[in-house]
Amino acid sequence: MATPEFTARTLRRLLTSGVTLRAERLLSKMPAADVGPILADLTQDEIRTVIELLFRQRRAAPVLRELPPEMLPQIFDALADQRIADVLARLEIDDLIELIEWVPEERREEVLSRLPVSRRDELMKAELYPEDSAGRAMTTSFVALDPKMTAQEAIDSIRSLGDENEAVLYLYVVDDQRCLLGVVPIRRLVAAPPHRPVGEIMIRDPVSVRAEADQEEVAALVRRYDLLAIPVLDVDGRMLGVITVDDVIEVITEEATEDMYRLAGLSGEDRVFSPAHTSVRKRLPWMLLNLGTCFLAAWVVGLFERTIQQVVALAVFMPVVAGMAGNGGTQALTVITRGIALGEIEFSTGLRAALKELMVGVSIGVVTGIASALIAYAWHGSPVLGLALFLSMVVAMAVSGLMGAAVPLGLKALKQDPALGSGVIVTTFTDVFAFFAFLGIATLLLDRLV
Amino acid sequence: MATPEFTARTLRRLLTSGVTLRAERLLSKMPAADVGPILADLTQDEIRTVIELLFRQRRAAPVLRELPPEMLPQIFDALADQRIADVLARLEIDDLIELIEWVPEERREEVLSRLPVSRRDELMKAELYPEDSAGRAMTTSFVALDPKMTAQEAIDSIRSLGDENEAVLYLYVVDDQRCLLGVVPIRRLVAAPPHRPVGEIMIRDPVSVRAEADQEEVAALVRRYDLLAIPVLDVDGRMLGVITVDDVIEVITEEATEDMYRLAGLSGEDRVFSPAHTSVRKRLPWMLLNLGTCFLAAWVVGLFERTIQQVVALAVFMPVVAGMAGNGGTQALTVITRGIALGEIEFSTGLRAALKELMVGVSIGVVTGIASALIAYAWHGSPVLGLALFLSMVVAMAVSGLMGAAVPLGLKALKQDPALGSGVIVTTFTDVFAFFAFLGIATLLLDRLV
Repeated sequence: MATPEFTARTLRRLLTSGVTLRAERLLSKMPAADVGPILADLTQDEIRTVIELLFRQRRAAPVLRELPPEMLPQIFDALADQRIADVLARLEIDDLIELIEWVPEERREEVLSRLPVSRRDELMKAELYPEDSAGRAMTTSFVALDPKMTAQEAIDSIRSLGDENEAVLYLYVVDDQRCLLGVVPIRRLVAAPPHRPVGEIMIRDPVSVRAEADQEEVAALVRRYDLLAIPVLDVDGRMLGVITVDDVIEVITEEATEDMYRLAGLSGEDRVFSPAHTSVRKRLPWMLLNLGTCFLAAWVVGLFERTIQQVVALAVFMPVVAGMAGNGGTQALTVITRGIALGEIEFSTGLRAALKELMVGVSIGVVTGIASALIAYAWHGSPVLGLALFLSMVVAMAVSGLMGAAVPLGLKALKQDPALGSGVIVTTFTDVFAFFAFLGIATLLLDRLV
Repeated sequence: MATPEFTARTLRRLLTSGVTLRAERLLSKMPAADVGPILADLTQDEIRTVIELLFRQRRAAPVLRELPPEMLPQIFDALADQRIADVLARLEIDDLIELIEWVPEERREEVLSRLPVSRRDELMKAELYPEDSAGRAMTTSFVALDPKMTAQEAIDSIRSLGDENEAVLYLYVVDDQRCLLGVVPIRRLVAAPPHRPVGEIMIRDPVSVRAEADQEEVAALVRRYDLLAIPVLDVDGRMLGVITVDDVIEVITEEATEDMYRLAGLSGEDRVFSPAHTSVRKRLPWMLLNLGTCFLAAWVVGLFERTIQQVVALAVFMPVVAGMAGNGGTQALTVITRGIALGEIEFSTGLRAALKELMVGVSIGVVTGIASALIAYAWHGSPVLGLALFLSMVVAMAVSGLMGAAVPLGLKALKQDPALGSGVIVTTFTDVFAFFAFLGIATLLLDRLV
């Protein structure tokens, strides 16, 4: 397969030499997901032309849908309001609601006003649901059946829909209030005797979600029960829409990225291909916060300046205790936040998990503490320094394990995101505590140290 | 919904009071995925009884399949070899191959010998494919059609299969050599005129993978093209099996966990619910390696003992430079490794990404360096100390950004896992370099510092 840069070069050559027809043909042969990387390599003018060509092929909407959303502002910059509206109007409502967020705020109203009235209404209705909720992520096109309909009638009704809804996998059986009664996998419909009513072949009480449910919850259900789509219901059990597995895969991927990013204090909009100034702007607040916590650690060290003055070797071994405690804390934090995200905490309990991390911290602290003490003794010849290192390592590792578990579990209990903030809280605490433990113990042993 | 602990208690009460029938009914009403968390709360004896009950309901295999594999050893410990073989024999080949790995090595041969011969043959054939390959992850049950078959004939053939294969979503059209010609989504089959040959309604040249392909590649394709299943072919294009989207979701989740875990130096078997001794054993080697790198940093500080002796305040500010550089490195590392995993690097290039991280590092270094210099000046009243802090902050942040990008990109270029090892290399390097930069610059300015 040609690399995106190579295809971009070919495309650019075709465009600049005016061979639009061949450019169009090249584009038409590429799957929507493959066009994205090429756009990243084009100028604004070229982007505009390519979107025009795609629009003629009725493929501009799927191409934009497949782009990492962080690339959208660059694309929208190249397009007129009307063209953006034309493209967005062709999207399913869940995609429309996602993409409209990326239109620069000052142009959003204008773009919205150019959408067909029906789409605008749909959008307004969808936006009534909370952000990241099932109601926003669902598509409203699905096949609803009457329970008295026969299997053959259901098949005929699908046939009459034509080729439009190729993604239909389940059919939903509803009563006259549109309340969900059951679900018929299309495979089961095909295998059923033609005259059997769908009410008899449906799966009753299928897994469903409320429109207000968070998309993480939706993803967890789909993953847990291996579903291909999940129906979305209102308070009264009426069927509103469907969330399909491809959207769920996106959610799962996004949530994993978010967790990793949050542990490192990163914002979602800060990607490999984001311009440097965006990354700087997004990272600075966190780095300044972090600077504050570093100075907190420095202040703790400062409390012991007189001790260090007398035993400079302490400055040498300080990074060992802090480094190890920091790593221990990060390990506990990673296991627990990932465990929470994957629902693994169900297989244990918060208290059990925190105690376990404490014990793991103590055990590793003892082993690495002994190793450190021996190295320090061999290097500086002071058994008391070795003792201070051993003791502080055990205490610091124990506390960092406990904190690495307790902070995300506590945030979760407070209904906060366990990944958000955990990183900085745990690192600060372990750093501060490690310095305090090591230098404090050294100060207590100072008479025998000097 | 009752919590797992509550249900476990109820189940335990039913079991100990011998009301097996009610326990059986309780279990039969629970979806397979919900039984797992309950097993975690039972004794070995109780596990054995529950698995027996599930086995009678023909549900033991799906329950084991839904467990986090790290829990399996505990379950297998409670079961006799024959029972393990009975349960495993009911799994699809891809699940069988995964679960057999978790049977304790000393019992594995015995368990294998008790499998039906046909399953053993299948297993041996599947194990010829490399680990984590498509060949191991595929199921070999799929519906193959002759291109001359009509839509109605295809539907009839599905009907004759009965209710077994509810997951069938695509039908595969193959020639007389079993080479894949095209794919027919079941939805399209239903919508097609009954007498049309499937060869005319199929999608030609569908996305497929070779059996040797890595499962990450499979997941990337499914995510990229929004597929529900992907056909697996041999070298000659013959159809071997299918990988379905629920397996792909597992792969995506696993890979994300693996990346997070690797950045923190954790092994996949170290979970929330793993016993403490397992976690200690798995984490110790990495923590000892880490101890080595901490002592490397300590050794660098040791080189400047005489400088610190003269200006003890340097020991106070050391953690600031190292802490900030460490964080900057982690941020760059997270953006790049996640970008590689998601294929976002396609939207940029390695060189561009590394240069960008360098620039981001310099910019953030300048801002936080100025802030640090001002704080240090206000605190210790030494402008030269502030200058040393500023200069080393800029250099250390620049280098950590560059390294955070270059290390995973370099590992990827060497066809190594970019997440594995990056964490420890980058942290070590940034720590060592930060101390060296700060104390080195301070030593150069020493005359004006004291």
